[in-house]
Amino acid sequence: MPRYMDIKRGMTGITAEQLDEVHRADRAAEREEGVHFEHVWADPRSGTVFCLSEAPSEEAVRRAHERAGHPVDEIHPVSLSV
Amino acid sequence: MPRYMDIKRGMTGITAEQLDEVHRADRAAEREEGVHFEHVWADPRSGTVFCLSEAPSEEAVRRAHERAGHPVDEIHPVSLSV
Repeated sequence: MPRYMDIKRGMTGITAEQLDEVHRADRAAEREEGVHFEHVWADPRSGTVFCLSEAPSEEAVRRAHERAGHPVDEIHPVSLSV
Repeated sequence: MPRYMDIKRGMTGITAEQLDEVHRADRAAEREEGVHFEHVWADPRSGTVFCLSEAPSEEAVRRAHERAGHPVDEIHPVSLSV
């Protein structure tokens, strides 16, 4: 299944508890869209959150995040990795 | 050691071989800066490359990429992850 890296900005000051909550909400929205959210990394200083997923399409990633209540700013199909 | 996610843009059309070469150059520049580049993901369509590293500082990440010949656009200390 294709992999995606998405970026959400504007989360300045996000705490570990809030990031856990974001990830829990994403995971709860996974099944309807066939998405699997693998990892999330956050930079509280700049408010940037990176999320790596496996999904059938970019739109599925977008919808899963929207369903979880936090739409993202960019979604990149990362077809290459090392 | 702190972790960082960096973003390099403008790599539209990057191939698997070119990404391998970028990562090899990064790894060759690691030791001088005390950086370890863990993973790289690339979206050839938009030309966006994401790189996850462990490093003593943001400046060390910046210098290692510059030493390898491909400076990055953003470096984020990702102090939180799930």
